[in-house]
Amino acid sequence: MEKEGLEVAGKKIGKQTIRFVNKPIISGMCSVVGTKEGQGPLKEYFDVILQDDMYNEKTWEKAESKMLKEAVMTAAKRSGVSTEEIDVMLTGDLLNQLMSSAFMARDLHIPFIGLYGACSTMTQAMLISGMIVDGNFATNVLAGASSHFCTAERQFRMPLEHGNQRPPSAQWTATAAGAVCISAAPNENVKNLVPPPKTICLTEGTIGKIIDTGMKDANQMGAAMAPAAVDTLLNHLEDTGRSPDYYDIILTGDLGFIGKDIAVDLLTDAGLNRGILQNIYDDCGTMIYEKEQDVHSGGSGCGCSASVYTGWLFRRMRKGEINRALILSTGALLSTISPFQGESIPGIAHAVALETM
Amino acid sequence: MEKEGLEVAGKKIGKQTIRFVNKPIISGMCSVVGTKEGQGPLKEYFDVILQDDMYNEKTWEKAESKMLKEAVMTAAKRSGVSTEEIDVMLTGDLLNQLMSSAFMARDLHIPFIGLYGACSTMTQAMLISGMIVDGNFATNVLAGASSHFCTAERQFRMPLEHGNQRPPSAQWTATAAGAVCISAAPNENVKNLVPPPKTICLTEGTIGKIIDTGMKDANQMGAAMAPAAVDTLLNHLEDTGRSPDYYDIILTGDLGFIGKDIAVDLLTDAGLNRGILQNIYDDCGTMIYEKEQDVHSGGSGCGCSASVYTGWLFRRMRKGEINRALILSTGALLSTISPFQGESIPGIAHAVALETM
Repeated sequence: MEKEGLEVAGKKIGKQTIRFVNKPIISGMCSVVGTKEGQGPLKEYFDVILQDDMYNEKTWEKAESKMLKEAVMTAAKRSGVSTEEIDVMLTGDLLNQLMSSAFMARDLHIPFIGLYGACSTMTQAMLISGMIVDGNFATNVLAGASSHFCTAERQFRMPLEHGNQRPPSAQWTATAAGAVCISAAPNENVKNLVPPPKTICLTEGTIGKIIDTGMKDANQMGAAMAPAAVDTLLNHLEDTGRSPDYYDIILTGDLGFIGKDIAVDLLTDAGLNRGILQNIYDDCGTMIYEKEQDVHSGGSGCGCSASVYTGWLFRRMRKGEINRALILSTGALLSTISPFQGESIPGIAHAVALETM
Repeated sequence: MEKEGLEVAGKKIGKQTIRFVNKPIISGMCSVVGTKEGQGPLKEYFDVILQDDMYNEKTWEKAESKMLKEAVMTAAKRSGVSTEEIDVMLTGDLLNQLMSSAFMARDLHIPFIGLYGACSTMTQAMLISGMIVDGNFATNVLAGASSHFCTAERQFRMPLEHGNQRPPSAQWTATAAGAVCISAAPNENVKNLVPPPKTICLTEGTIGKIIDTGMKDANQMGAAMAPAAVDTLLNHLEDTGRSPDYYDIILTGDLGFIGKDIAVDLLTDAGLNRGILQNIYDDCGTMIYEKEQDVHSGGSGCGCSASVYTGWLFRRMRKGEINRALILSTGALLSTISPFQGESIPGIAHAVALETM
C-alpha cells in the first residue's frame, strides 16, 4: 500500500497517554469461545463456539493454542490480507512461557512479539500494535489474546480432578480467544462490502502503571485489579481533557461483579458522576456469563475481554450502534509463587480509545 | 523536550526489518551481575557486581527483581532524567508471570509493558522501545531484562538442593540484569561530559519469526536457538542489502559454545564467508564466563546478553572502539510443561542495529 500524505507520527499527550495521529483501523477481527461462553448472553455475537473445549486436541494447552490460531488467522483473512502480508503479530496468554502464543506463532511464520500482561493482554497488544502501525513501521499487525478455563485452573489453582470448591468472590477463567488485525487503511479487497460497515479507528491509548493496594487474596482478583483500572481511566480522562460521557461506552476487562462495584465506588469518590457511570460503564467479566451459569463473581482471563471486544463491541461499532468506546483490559500480575513469598497482587490496566468514522 | 524538524516516522524495509528514521539514542545504561559473572573475563566492564547473589533479600526471586530495579534506575539516572521523566518501561525475565519485572515495576510507578521472549527479551525490548521513541510516542523509554541462576534452575530444571549433574551441552543461566534508556536526543544535563562519549543510535531492527527445527533436548538450548538466530541474521542482511562486514561486530545473545559453532556452520552453508564471520561474529554466552568456571556450554538467560551489551559492548561503543554493531538476543520458547506434551523447542531471535555518531 502506498502511503501518501502521512502525518508525522504519534504524539504523547499528558502523562500516560499517546495519540494515534494517523488513526490506524481495525480491519479484521475474530472471536472463538468455549461451550460455556457459547451458552451465555453474548452467544449471538461470537464467531466460533466450540462443541467441545478440547477442540480435537490432546491437551487443554494445545486446544487453547488452536483457538488463538483460529482467531488470528480469521482476523487476518477478514481484513483482506493473507498471513504472508502480516508484518508482525503480538499476542499473549496466561500460560507459563506463553505456551499458547508461542506454539500458535510457530506454525504461522510471521514475525512475533510475545507479551505478558495477565488479563490486560488484549489492550496491551492493541496499544503496541497501534503504535507500530501509526508510526509507519508496519501496514498490517495482528493483536490477540487467549485463555482456557482448564489450563488456567491447573496452572494457578487446583487440579480440576480435585473438584475443590470456589469461594463466591472467585471469577471463572473464560475459555476464549480474540484477535484483531490493525491496519494503516482498509485493504483493497474488502472495500466494497454491502452494506459498508463503519470503520473503527484507534484514536488514543493510555499505558497503565502497576498499582498494588496490598490485596493478598487470589480469589479476589476483581478487588485487586479495580484500583489499577480506576487509575488508568482517571489518567486517561485527565490526559485527554475528556469527561466519561465523551464515550458511548467504557468497558473494563474482567473486574467481575465485585470488582466492577469497587471501581464504580472509587470513581465516584474521585468525583465522577455515578449516574453517568451507571449508563455508560460496564465490565466484560459481568457480560460474558449469566449469573445462573455458576460463575460466582463473573468471567476473567485474557480471552474474556478479547472475545467480548472482538465479538460484541467491535461488531456493534461496525454497525454504528456504538461510535466511541474506551476499553481497558485489566491484569493481576501475581505469579504462581509470589503469594508463597508473602507478596500482594500487583494490578495493571491499559486503555485504548476507539471511534468509528 | 521540543521536537523540531522531526521526520515522518519509521519505515519498513524488506520483509522483517524496520528503519528508525529519527535515530533514537541509547542515553543511559547499566549492568548488574552476580558473583560468578563478576569473576569472569568481562568483570572490568560491569557496573555492579554482587557480593552475594541473594542481594540482601529473602528469596532468589526478590534478589533478581532488585537487580533489575537497580539496572533500570541507574540507566535512567545516567541518561540525565528522573524516573518521573520516563514515559514508559518495557522489561521481561524468565520467571513465570514475569515476577521479577512485575515486582520491580510495582515500586517505580512508571507506565509498564511486560514482555516475554525468553532469552531474546533484551533486543525485543529495545526494538519496541526504539519504535515508541522513533514514532514520537515517547521521549525517554527504559528497556531491560534479567535472569538469575537460582530462580531459573528451580523453575525450569531441578531444585538446587538436589545437586544433579549437568550434561556438557547444558548452559549456565547468568545471574545478571541489564537496562538501557532509549531517548529521542541526549538530555540536557549530560551533554557536557568530558571527554564527550560517542552517541549510540538505533538504526534498524529486525523482528524475528519462530523457528522450530524439531529439537527436543532442553539441555541443548544453543542448538535449538541457533537456526532462529541464523534466520533473523540472514533476513536482516537481505532486507538491508548489507554484507556481514558492514558491522564491526555481530553479537548473538546466548547460543553458547555449541550453538555458536552451529550458527557459524549454518551461515557458511548459506553462503557467508567463514573467515569474515570468525573475525566479527561472537556470542554473549561464550564471552561472559571463562571455560574454567565450570559452565559447560557457556552462559544463557535474559540477563546474559542484557549485561554483555550494557556492560561491554555499549561501553566500548561510547569510547569509539566499536562503531557499528548488530545484536541478536536469542530465546528458546519452550514452556515448563510443553516437553511433557511431546513438543519440540521453538526458537526466536530479534536483531537491533546500532551505530555511533
